Amino acid sequence: MKILVVGANGQIGKHLVSFIQDSDSLEAKAMIRKQEQASFFENLGAETAVVDLEGDIESIAKAAEGVDAVVFTAGSGGHTGADKTVMVDLDGAVKTIEAAKLAGVKRFVMVSSFDTTRKAIQEASSSFAPYVVAKHYADEWLKRADLEYTIIHPGLLTNDKGTGQITAAAEVGRNEVPREDVASVIVASLENEKTAGKESQVVTGTTLIKDAVQSV
Amino acid sequence: MKILVVGANGQIGKHLVSFIQDSDSLEAKAMIRKQEQASFFENLGAETAVVDLEGDIESIAKAAEGVDAVVFTAGSGGHTGADKTVMVDLDGAVKTIEAAKLAGVKRFVMVSSFDTTRKAIQEASSSFAPYVVAKHYADEWLKRADLEYTIIHPGLLTNDKGTGQITAAAEVGRNEVPREDVASVIVASLENEKTAGKESQVVTGTTLIKDAVQSV
Repeated sequence: MKILVVGANGQIGKHLVSFIQDSDSLEAKAMIRKQEQASFFENLGAETAVVDLEGDIESIAKAAEGVDAVVFTAGSGGHTGADKTVMVDLDGAVKTIEAAKLAGVKRFVMVSSFDTTRKAIQEASSSFAPYVVAKHYADEWLKRADLEYTIIHPGLLTNDKGTGQITAAAEVGRNEVPREDVASVIVASLENEKTAGKESQVVTGTTLIKDAVQSV
Repeated sequence: MKILVVGANGQIGKHLVSFIQDSDSLEAKAMIRKQEQASFFENLGAETAVVDLEGDIESIAKAAEGVDAVVFTAGSGGHTGADKTVMVDLDGAVKTIEAAKLAGVKRFVMVSSFDTTRKAIQEASSSFAPYVVAKHYADEWLKRADLEYTIIHPGLLTNDKGTGQITAAAEVGRNEVPREDVASVIVASLENEKTAGKESQVVTGTTLIKDAVQSV
């Protein structure tokens, strides 16, 4: 099963490509923005595709040709302004969804934000709200896209080493979660068809990732 | 026929409420952000509702209760950043659409931007693109909302006096159009059920507004 990882050069993306390459049943195709980012993934034995997420749908669809699933884990990053949030977190995500459809790829895993509900938008600070809005519409677009989607809503991301244990459900208490464990959740979701059509919040916890993903 | 004008205190909005109040068949309810904006509309004999477009859907729906149509002509304005573009032009528009549905109002007229297509997003400058994206998703949301929508895509807005004559079609050459004429186009659209389910670009031209709207 070949997985196109959009946002492969991000912090979750790098863990994810590494875990995919370690898996027996999966192989990764890393979508990256610049050629000079390729060596990291080539060293893992992964295929790469250099595509700018701010480009058109067709160029993303070309990268998605022949893969079995697409993972969207790109993010504009907290240090950029609302303009990049709009272009990457919203429009980049939607273009990737449309590209998957165009390439005939049915399976789609979205790395979202912890809470992208209407309530979260209304309660967000004025500086954070545009990001929540962008992720909200990306998630909504995916849910209406007639794809086999899984939406993962991770808690506060840390660079701590993964514990391999999480709590996952439609609603969980806000807590931290290591990026490494989020990458493991994505792999477990790709390996479990039962997660199609589902979304869940994910924080660090006491259940083995595989079991937590199975029980969502 | 009572019309809720969202963004009434904007430049198009003020012309629009004035024209609605001059019409025999229409009456306006001006949705404004601050109480001190009310006197302009009260002097026109129009009802007012003080609602912040950054508030929740329910408060907008309350303003929409009992009206026959909603016009969205609010805009963050060119001088604000992408954060306000997200919150007003995208999320404010979508909340107004959801509010119309909640209040059982079927008719919805959207004042959009001249070109909100995918092509326009890809060709826009990096500073303008977030605005095009915001208007694109607002339009898309409306088209999928099961409302009797009309989307007006005006050309470059000016404060020139209206000529009463326009060119309107799915695609027209880019040109200027006085805000006063856009307000007249909105009134003509509200008065012509044939415009439901349609969108058109509108620039200054040589056809009487009523005739141009009828032929779209």
